[in-house]
Amino acid sequence: MTVKQLPLPELVEACVDLGIPGIGLWREPVQNYGVESAAKLVGDAGLTVTTLCRGGFLTAIDPRERAVALADNRTAIDEAATLGTDTLVLVSGGLPAGSKDLHGARERIADAIAELAPYAGERGIRLAIEPLHPMYAADRCVISTLTQALDIAERFPADQVGVAVDTYHIWWDDQAPAQVARAGAAGRIHTFQLADWTTPLPEGVLNGRGQIGDGAIDTREWRERVDAAGYTGPIEVELFNDVLWARDGLELLKETAERFVEHAL
Amino acid sequence: MTVKQLPLPELVEACVDLGIPGIGLWREPVQNYGVESAAKLVGDAGLTVTTLCRGGFLTAIDPRERAVALADNRTAIDEAATLGTDTLVLVSGGLPAGSKDLHGARERIADAIAELAPYAGERGIRLAIEPLHPMYAADRCVISTLTQALDIAERFPADQVGVAVDTYHIWWDDQAPAQVARAGAAGRIHTFQLADWTTPLPEGVLNGRGQIGDGAIDTREWRERVDAAGYTGPIEVELFNDVLWARDGLELLKETAERFVEHAL
Repeated sequence: MTVKQLPLPELVEACVDLGIPGIGLWREPVQNYGVESAAKLVGDAGLTVTTLCRGGFLTAIDPRERAVALADNRTAIDEAATLGTDTLVLVSGGLPAGSKDLHGARERIADAIAELAPYAGERGIRLAIEPLHPMYAADRCVISTLTQALDIAERFPADQVGVAVDTYHIWWDDQAPAQVARAGAAGRIHTFQLADWTTPLPEGVLNGRGQIGDGAIDTREWRERVDAAGYTGPIEVELFNDVLWARDGLELLKETAERFVEHAL
Repeated sequence: MTVKQLPLPELVEACVDLGIPGIGLWREPVQNYGVESAAKLVGDAGLTVTTLCRGGFLTAIDPRERAVALADNRTAIDEAATLGTDTLVLVSGGLPAGSKDLHGARERIADAIAELAPYAGERGIRLAIEPLHPMYAADRCVISTLTQALDIAERFPADQVGVAVDTYHIWWDDQAPAQVARAGAAGRIHTFQLADWTTPLPEGVLNGRGQIGDGAIDTREWRERVDAAGYTGPIEVELFNDVLWARDGLELLKETAERFVEHAL
């Protein structure tokens, strides 16, 4: 999504050219290209698929809506397996319309994961609960802290359910460093993602994730924390930014790789 | 600020008409009207000044900037005393330009409060550290949770330093209810403010605080929590909202009073 202006074949070629060894994919572009075709394209290029984004949206109260969400998550797990990644990232979902019950929504997420985790485990896929910044708590994800994500993940085996650690969502939280250590010790950091925090936030606050190095987050310090917690998996850069998306995709990808080296390694 | 379209005399008259017993004032309109004149206007009408907003912005590294901020806070304390309120709300400040050091900024706030608290105490003013929503951590307030605010407040006597509990900033935090109890037990809830969480957030995320009842927050549940913690002080409604500000101020004040009764009492 960082360079969503690039079609999948161009993205894969550019990653190879730049020495980027893996890519995190999103479901929509993969579905549009064809899941098996995408798997072949990426595999033939020698790249790994780091994660698939995203499953989740598991907070529905209505039984039919809930069944549809569970079915869609099983499809996402199947897609992840086809792509050859071991991790499906979950954006858990916000409050249903009219509801003010955060606790109930969080418990429905845990109940849904209880149904999905064995299905994922049988297919070699780990679910990564991603805490989203508290500004998304109402409409996107009621799991707002790494603490909350781990409290749910720890109800399940670590090879089935863990967390996604994304600097954009947790950088402000003084309890997050200890939670990174907790997650690492339990083998539950299933992916690590970087983005910087830049202001002012745009309307809707979805597409204002900053290029690494442009904002308030000490990305290297977070990388070191995740290292110290024992994490050895891929590091993803995930920017959603209308300004960046308006730029030339290849140039943006190159800049992002350079910023990664400068501010995270 | 909820009805900033109303000049101070009209606001005072409307509060009396509606049976609203007190008002929280902001420094700028009070300074424009004259601090002593404002004190007389409000006092003659039989209203109390619940709090003065706001001091703070205490994170500067530069010694001269820091001295200016401390002097301005002493002025704010003097203004609060003149107005006859017992509470000055602090918006503590964001990261200085170029800094990524949240911990250092929080410690500078504590150091500044150590200088201001005795000055405030001598004048009968309590400082209320307001945790702001984490979406303001970079540019407005590095104190993002009630836990952090209390950790600093507890370094000082409760009659000098406490916290402001504002539903808009803490509603998403599953640790906040226990922190409300902690604050109440220590006599450190120095004000309680209501606003609702509505989406989408506007650009800059400053002026999108929702009318009570319009959003995701169970305001009555929070009022009950604050009650249970032993708080008996005023309940303020603080909305910053461009859409509400464009409406007729008297109509908005009446609606707000009705919503308060409907969703908080």
